[in-house]
Amino acid sequence: MEIAKTIESVKSLVKAANSQGKKIGFVPTMGALHIGHISLIKAAVKSCDFVVVSIFVNPTQFGPSEDLEKYPRPLEKDLEICRKNNADLVFTPSPKEIYPGENITWVTVDKLTESLCGQSRPGHFRGVTTVCTKLFNIVQPDIAFFGQKDAQQAIVIKQMVTDLNMPLEIVICPTVREPDGLAVSSRNQYLSEQQRKDAAYIFKSLKKCQEMIDAGTANAQKVITKMREILQRVPSIEIEYVSIVDAETLQNVDKITGKIFTAVAVKIGSTRLIDNILMDAGER
Amino acid sequence: MEIAKTIESVKSLVKAANSQGKKIGFVPTMGALHIGHISLIKAAVKSCDFVVVSIFVNPTQFGPSEDLEKYPRPLEKDLEICRKNNADLVFTPSPKEIYPGENITWVTVDKLTESLCGQSRPGHFRGVTTVCTKLFNIVQPDIAFFGQKDAQQAIVIKQMVTDLNMPLEIVICPTVREPDGLAVSSRNQYLSEQQRKDAAYIFKSLKKCQEMIDAGTANAQKVITKMREILQRVPSIEIEYVSIVDAETLQNVDKITGKIFTAVAVKIGSTRLIDNILMDAGER
Repeated sequence: MEIAKTIESVKSLVKAANSQGKKIGFVPTMGALHIGHISLIKAAVKSCDFVVVSIFVNPTQFGPSEDLEKYPRPLEKDLEICRKNNADLVFTPSPKEIYPGENITWVTVDKLTESLCGQSRPGHFRGVTTVCTKLFNIVQPDIAFFGQKDAQQAIVIKQMVTDLNMPLEIVICPTVREPDGLAVSSRNQYLSEQQRKDAAYIFKSLKKCQEMIDAGTANAQKVITKMREILQRVPSIEIEYVSIVDAETLQNVDKITGKIFTAVAVKIGSTRLIDNILMDAGER
Repeated sequence: MEIAKTIESVKSLVKAANSQGKKIGFVPTMGALHIGHISLIKAAVKSCDFVVVSIFVNPTQFGPSEDLEKYPRPLEKDLEICRKNNADLVFTPSPKEIYPGENITWVTVDKLTESLCGQSRPGHFRGVTTVCTKLFNIVQPDIAFFGQKDAQQAIVIKQMVTDLNMPLEIVICPTVREPDGLAVSSRNQYLSEQQRKDAAYIFKSLKKCQEMIDAGTANAQKVITKMREILQRVPSIEIEYVSIVDAETLQNVDKITGKIFTAVAVKIGSTRLIDNILMDAGER
């Protein structure tokens, strides 16, 4: 496995792989790799010949009061995970390598970034789409892999790739969960033992949503109220949003029908956690 | 010479050229080709093995009260010019091919787009940078060629390519002028005979600027006042701006020193014309 810190060396290594006719897979990450990331690397290894993992805690997607400084950066452990899972190249640039000066060029996706996390994290998606554009242009992959856990991010990036005719395919891999249902996330390690137990209620509320919809409930507000009740029973949980949205437009729906996704964002202590389930409720 | 109307066919033709190890040159245009465009095609043919010209009147870079509808579209003549000048492929997409739905993804360059034409044409540069990103992703050229006549556009695009790590080089070719100094532009054909004569005063004002700076004038306001006097002598000319800016930041300068560029935008009747000269005034 190669490790590259500079854009130049990534480009020359990918070029060499390309000239051998290899299909390039790319897994962009912020490090602190867990079994969710591993599932992405495995998917990339399975369908591509040369797999690039980037590890870069991207400052432009963090708000001024967010956890940029304290975001975990266990580089040696991350590299070991990449090695074990047969990545071919890990790109670990410094912030200066990616943003040598003040960044004045931005890629923005309107509409889809206005709801859900876009409301509470202004500028977040602009940071994500801009850094992904940069990384895509550096790595020039055939396929890039993202997790369904960050559902809005996945939809926004797919839209960006389509709208800007970017020459790559985006593959979304299923959310990986702990035995109690909690979606695996690098931020779970911020939680105390009690908070970690409480966090399981996020998925409990989503499961209740699934049950109600499966049982025929079509009234979105009724489902949301029930989900909020479940979450509010846990004193450490502060709800940011519980939303049922159209899976394409990400706009709130009143009536549950067709493809929707239900998304939850909460704070437990100072840790912000998100989760979602994607559903086809069919015609009602 | 091949002519392609779809993204798919451009991609497959460029891919074929690429697989033969050919260097891809790209000249993005809005058609109504003139000797300025021809100089770009010639530069591309000289330094590349496979030259793509796009002809696309991009709606997103026109303001609501601008000349999108009446912009000239002499397609047969344009194709003949491309053929004569040894282009290999001309891409002539429909608006629907480039924007199949409502466009919600934008590439924006801050700061550099705030002065000069950015002030009078809000949204213009956002349209230019977005369509160029799309075209670059479709054509995937090694080098793209732009004219110095649209100086701010050239600087904005160079900044975008650098900031977003786009895998291509931007080459800026000198402004081509008529015998009386008027910068060649597709919009010159809107002018009546008298207006065409009047338009020569744009370059006269720029030449005066050059003379004053060569003679040692360092006071930008003094030069601008003189230039305005020249332009105001012509009743048909309505000045939009006369600016002397730092060639890197595009911010107005008070003292003329180092690399600057002097830019003029006027309206003659309903026709908007721009021109500029780039200068190194050295230390003063």
